[in-house]
Amino acid sequence: MPKLIDHATRRLELVNAAWDLIASDGVYAATVRLVAERAGVSPGSVRFIFPSQDSLLGAVVSELLSRTRAEADRVAGVYAKPDQIIARLCASLPIHNDQNLLRRVERALRLAVGQIPHLAADLASCRAIRAAECRYVVSTLASGLGVTDQTLEFEVWRTAALMEGLAEQLCSPDGGTSSDQAWTVLQTHLRGVESNWRRAPRRSAQHGSAARDVR
Amino acid sequence: MPKLIDHATRRLELVNAAWDLIASDGVYAATVRLVAERAGVSPGSVRFIFPSQDSLLGAVVSELLSRTRAEADRVAGVYAKPDQIIARLCASLPIHNDQNLLRRVERALRLAVGQIPHLAADLASCRAIRAAECRYVVSTLASGLGVTDQTLEFEVWRTAALMEGLAEQLCSPDGGTSSDQAWTVLQTHLRGVESNWRRAPRRSAQHGSAARDVR
Repeated sequence: MPKLIDHATRRLELVNAAWDLIASDGVYAATVRLVAERAGVSPGSVRFIFPSQDSLLGAVVSELLSRTRAEADRVAGVYAKPDQIIARLCASLPIHNDQNLLRRVERALRLAVGQIPHLAADLASCRAIRAAECRYVVSTLASGLGVTDQTLEFEVWRTAALMEGLAEQLCSPDGGTSSDQAWTVLQTHLRGVESNWRRAPRRSAQHGSAARDVR
Repeated sequence: MPKLIDHATRRLELVNAAWDLIASDGVYAATVRLVAERAGVSPGSVRFIFPSQDSLLGAVVSELLSRTRAEADRVAGVYAKPDQIIARLCASLPIHNDQNLLRRVERALRLAVGQIPHLAADLASCRAIRAAECRYVVSTLASGLGVTDQTLEFEVWRTAALMEGLAEQLCSPDGGTSSDQAWTVLQTHLRGVESNWRRAPRRSAQHGSAARDVR
């Protein structure tokens, strides 16, 4: 006997089913048939809520954006003390399983954006959330140390690219990087940046990043 | 009237057709029908050479590996002088169109590896080629400067992750990074690493990377 279930709950179930399929096998695995199978409903029920695969993917990308925002807020809340500023950025790497799934869904959707352009805006927002977090942390490390705008800009670029690469390695089966290694690389990097800025506070053309502390 | 064309040439044409489709739209766009259409042949001709999509993708990943190797050799040949060691690594970023296509094909195949495990070995080899190049350049920068193994290892990890992140940004439509910016970030990073090692040659726990030269 079919369960009575409201529209919003069913919608979320289907997005979650698509989520898992996309994280493991990419966007094109999220067909109406496979999503229905995974959610334990009929293909007709999927089509009733999502008339096309595009509308399903639109719902997935909205969910991705809201979870990315929520995740950034969660990390900022957990690592809220001034001496946790470096840990805050490290903890935003896709280290735990849910974070990793989140990033894998994002990567998969990003790859499909050529064929499904309406995904682009939300994907750009996800990247912007991470960029803002990176800028916030690097600027906080620089504050009061007389770091020039140019040096700060370089460091924001470098740190954002480093984080993107670590995330990519963590999300790839052959990335060869463990969560511990990724955390250590980013932490050592940021400590080095900070200690270098502290050592040479007024050198105008100084980009920082010598890590003195090897843990 | 059908052209007479040998098996190897037809095979390469089909791999090239699949290449373009995969680079722009991902692995699942490389269907027999679309590959046939793009190569201007019948679906039957595709199936004659590649009985399954898996065999087609197997040929694509082999081609990817051989082009990745050829590209690394090309860059090493162009930037062969000792004072070009930093430029050599910068030039291996996916800056030019062909390099960018190469990386986009790799990303797309990597995302499909959950469903098509036989792609994994060649994809791991592609990553290993880049890792070896990164290790070679960073080790060359360190040579004769009394850099500890631990410091060298950190720098190899960091630089590899930085390059992966820059590549990812260059391959994404919303990556927000131009070729010039990516080159500058990596160059500034490597110059900083080297100059930091030069300044503190015997400091055992010193990770390098303060870039003093802003161009």
